Amino acid sequence: MANLGLVLGVDIGGTNTAMGLVDREGCCLASASMPTQGDQPAAVFFQRLHVRAQALLDSLGTGVELLAIGIGAPNANYLKCTIENPPNLSWEFVDIQAELAPYFDIPVAATNDANAAALGELHFGAARGLRDFIVITLGTGLGSGIVVNGELLYGSTGLAGELGHVIAEEDGRLCGCGRRGCLETYASATGLLRTVSDLLDCRDSASELHAVPRTELTARRVFEAAQRGDELALEAFEFTGTMLGRKLADAVAFSSPEAIILFGGLAGAGPVLFDPTRKALEDNLFRVFKGTVKLLPSGIQGGHAAILGASALGWDKLGKLSQHVEHR
Amino acid sequence: MANLGLVLGVDIGGTNTAMGLVDREGCCLASASMPTQGDQPAAVFFQRLHVRAQALLDSLGTGVELLAIGIGAPNANYLKCTIENPPNLSWEFVDIQAELAPYFDIPVAATNDANAAALGELHFGAARGLRDFIVITLGTGLGSGIVVNGELLYGSTGLAGELGHVIAEEDGRLCGCGRRGCLETYASATGLLRTVSDLLDCRDSASELHAVPRTELTARRVFEAAQRGDELALEAFEFTGTMLGRKLADAVAFSSPEAIILFGGLAGAGPVLFDPTRKALEDNLFRVFKGTVKLLPSGIQGGHAAILGASALGWDKLGKLSQHVEHR
Repeated sequence: MANLGLVLGVDIGGTNTAMGLVDREGCCLASASMPTQGDQPAAVFFQRLHVRAQALLDSLGTGVELLAIGIGAPNANYLKCTIENPPNLSWEFVDIQAELAPYFDIPVAATNDANAAALGELHFGAARGLRDFIVITLGTGLGSGIVVNGELLYGSTGLAGELGHVIAEEDGRLCGCGRRGCLETYASATGLLRTVSDLLDCRDSASELHAVPRTELTARRVFEAAQRGDELALEAFEFTGTMLGRKLADAVAFSSPEAIILFGGLAGAGPVLFDPTRKALEDNLFRVFKGTVKLLPSGIQGGHAAILGASALGWDKLGKLSQHVEHR
Repeated sequence: MANLGLVLGVDIGGTNTAMGLVDREGCCLASASMPTQGDQPAAVFFQRLHVRAQALLDSLGTGVELLAIGIGAPNANYLKCTIENPPNLSWEFVDIQAELAPYFDIPVAATNDANAAALGELHFGAARGLRDFIVITLGTGLGSGIVVNGELLYGSTGLAGELGHVIAEEDGRLCGCGRRGCLETYASATGLLRTVSDLLDCRDSASELHAVPRTELTARRVFEAAQRGDELALEAFEFTGTMLGRKLADAVAFSSPEAIILFGGLAGAGPVLFDPTRKALEDNLFRVFKGTVKLLPSGIQGGHAAILGASALGWDKLGKLSQHVEHR
């Protein structure tokens, strides 16, 4: 009997790195995580990654075969298979293929976490069967993965899909990128907290959030307050969703997706975020696009979304997913 | 000897329709134009089109073969091969294939004029060899054709690429689409005239344009004044280019094109438009895209740009352009 083919999906984060062995139906058969230790050289990281991955493979016994590795990482470039100046990691420039060459002789692909999330939704989640959609990852920042004609949009640089850095407000909030008014300064966990902070400064309301020291404010606390009906918290979500929905309307004018999928921590807020986003999106759509776009939550259940996304990149590279074969 | 294969490229405009027989190298061997007469039923138009096309074919004698028809038309939908509610034409809904079936038994494709222009640049113009670029058509309005991974972006509706209707200014100028602040209310011939009008209202300058009755102001007159150093005219172009460049920076964050090509009447203004557009684009780019995008004029010379673009759609449909064959 032929060996069961698996892809190693790796999600490199600023603090932790998660990895898992995933079959072509999107089942994660074994997973592990380790501290990224981004203050150490990249070579040390990839050596540790190899040890953990080998242990995972060994845990599955014989009868399995590792076919490819897919990596989601901050500032990863698909076209060059590199990581360049990743935030929160000391690695300046990482040639991923060169780092993995001593350990693995199989195809390797890397892209940023938002693109990996989009491939995860395409192959295993809410975007199965769709050819044109956008995934928006709402975490500390705002990332995006754009699929057109059934393929991820990488653009000429390999870095397409930076919707966190379209301008949502001229001369608006200062962004970490050095410019003002970027969408992620409004629509992200950090953006939500800035909005709450602004509202606390200018509202004399009875919000429970007045009692929380500013340094202890988190998106989760704001969400929990909103769930309890706190008006200031609800207003902050409403503003966040409105800013997001408006810019998503511009994105629809660009690529006319069938669906936009909100992914990541802040997306878990549900209706308090989705409702105002959907309203602002629909209100601001150019008429030919009205009623053509669905706003959806991620279709990937459980804690393995990032691993599945990274593994989907490996499967994509192999061209072995049945959907991919049909498309060719 | 095999017959020379040709594609009929048809550019349907609100007033006139141009057509030409184009070989696969982009040479237009014969061309003609006729009034569109959009107040007549579409069936009458296509019957007249057939007569003129047949006369063009006859003029080339034997040894040629019509292989396909490519049509650029306002509100044409590539996926459905329809024209729906075109501005300035009385046709509500046109099924192009059904209209042409009595006359031609060859492949037919249709798309809007901006998409046709993009295919023209891809196959015969400034975008030869590029896989990721955007064409912006600057005429009465602003249209766009977006190419990603070497293919036109149609999106789920067939109507992707409406960059004239991204919001350039919140609560800005009223647009013909019913919304406010759309990019084409600033960056188009009409937008330029609105800017001139605004400036004339609030500037006490010595501009020669003060002497022109408002109803006789045209983009050409403003351009000619700018060429003579008229400060108000130059300021109007500067503002137009700045608004355009800013939004093009957002478009780059979306698809990371290698080039953006300005096409159409207003693009002929040259440096007075290109310089401020290029500056605003570069100033507003997210850092990873700085220095990665060229702003170019159309690479299609002469008066046949629209016909060549429409014919490129036909060649694209046939999959017979050598570039297309290589890509597959």
